[in-house]
Amino acid sequence: MTLRHWELAGAEDDRLFSPNCWRVRMALAHKGLAAQTVPWRFTEKDAIAFSGQGLVPVIDDGGREVHDSWAIAEYLDERYPDRPLFDGAQARALALFFKHWVERNVHGAMFRVIVADLFASLHEKDRAYFRETREKRFGQTLEALGAGSHAALPALKATFDPVRPLLVAQPYVSGAAPAFADYLLFGPFQWARSVSPVRLLEPDDPMYAWRERMLDLFEGMPRATRGYPVWA
Amino acid sequence: MTLRHWELAGAEDDRLFSPNCWRVRMALAHKGLAAQTVPWRFTEKDAIAFSGQGLVPVIDDGGREVHDSWAIAEYLDERYPDRPLFDGAQARALALFFKHWVERNVHGAMFRVIVADLFASLHEKDRAYFRETREKRFGQTLEALGAGSHAALPALKATFDPVRPLLVAQPYVSGAAPAFADYLLFGPFQWARSVSPVRLLEPDDPMYAWRERMLDLFEGMPRATRGYPVWA
Repeated sequence: MTLRHWELAGAEDDRLFSPNCWRVRMALAHKGLAAQTVPWRFTEKDAIAFSGQGLVPVIDDGGREVHDSWAIAEYLDERYPDRPLFDGAQARALALFFKHWVERNVHGAMFRVIVADLFASLHEKDRAYFRETREKRFGQTLEALGAGSHAALPALKATFDPVRPLLVAQPYVSGAAPAFADYLLFGPFQWARSVSPVRLLEPDDPMYAWRERMLDLFEGMPRATRGYPVWA
Repeated sequence: MTLRHWELAGAEDDRLFSPNCWRVRMALAHKGLAAQTVPWRFTEKDAIAFSGQGLVPVIDDGGREVHDSWAIAEYLDERYPDRPLFDGAQARALALFFKHWVERNVHGAMFRVIVADLFASLHEKDRAYFRETREKRFGQTLEALGAGSHAALPALKATFDPVRPLLVAQPYVSGAAPAFADYLLFGPFQWARSVSPVRLLEPDDPMYAWRERMLDLFEGMPRATRGYPVWA
């Protein structure tokens, strides 16, 4: 039976930019599961109506539907216990904290840096939806947000301050090997990389070497996916 | 053999206010280890010179010296593997992130709220040291910091935003049972409680119920230690 993964795409079917879908893409690769990507756009609510809600990621695993990246991670560890995404109950609990921290700190800061490039990369049919929902969320026009993108970069870099000491002591956020917490933090980097050539990190930053390691995982799948190269 | 724990004390030997020492105090109780507290003041560097540095917590476990709260936690899990503080390698890695997050976000915000009460609770002989080191660190006089303490409370409460969703879903930061990550976050609350009657949390805040559960641990040891009651 086929495992299908509805993933947010931009103008091209293989411009996969959603940070939350990247969590699932990495988790599926971590498990060694082959998945069929179903490209999806924000306005294609009907295509995922079977999930009872309107956002991706959504997976269908041989007839079993699961949506929400966290629920999918928990489902995968239950259904496919080999190569766990969480190595215990505490790890799952602390990864949940990490998820909230990433969403509240990194996602917003990254959005401000890449917003103009992101908008330019959307499928034509998603632009009005994106403009309306994001301008409402941020209380500014996309153009006003985009004008601040250069100034937003130092704030983004500062959000990584509590992560850097870990990456000096160990290769991954999760320790000696990557796991779901790494995929949570990697999501916004692939969001950026898929739509923008902006240079986010300097090579002497421990975050830079970590991102390189992440791009090399799964035979380089994250690096090979459509996007801009990392400039050193 | 006796396990001794050098703990920072205020004017009274049993006013134990250091957030980092509270981590160790809770970790020792978690392990069911009896420890003898050695009250210590900032200026008693000679008393812990045997540790090769000048800060507490320091423990001496039957001749084995360990300092630094994180190193002590790792030592305790290695030496006393029952009732682990970390249930696996990922949990330890993510707790290290949590430690850095607590120190960078909660400690500074808490300090601004309690600074005047904290200074008033110090042993007389520590006051000049404390003033000099803290005024240098914050770039302001203690009086200027203290004047902003009321205004600093909303900022402190906002730092808990990424923690609250966890505490709605589960009783402790670490999941179903408390572990080292909980002690990391509880440290600054005991820092406040030991020196200040300030009302930090409202009863409808999920953080409030968590703090109540923490105060009840180990037969109520944290609540029974000298400090101010929590006002509801």
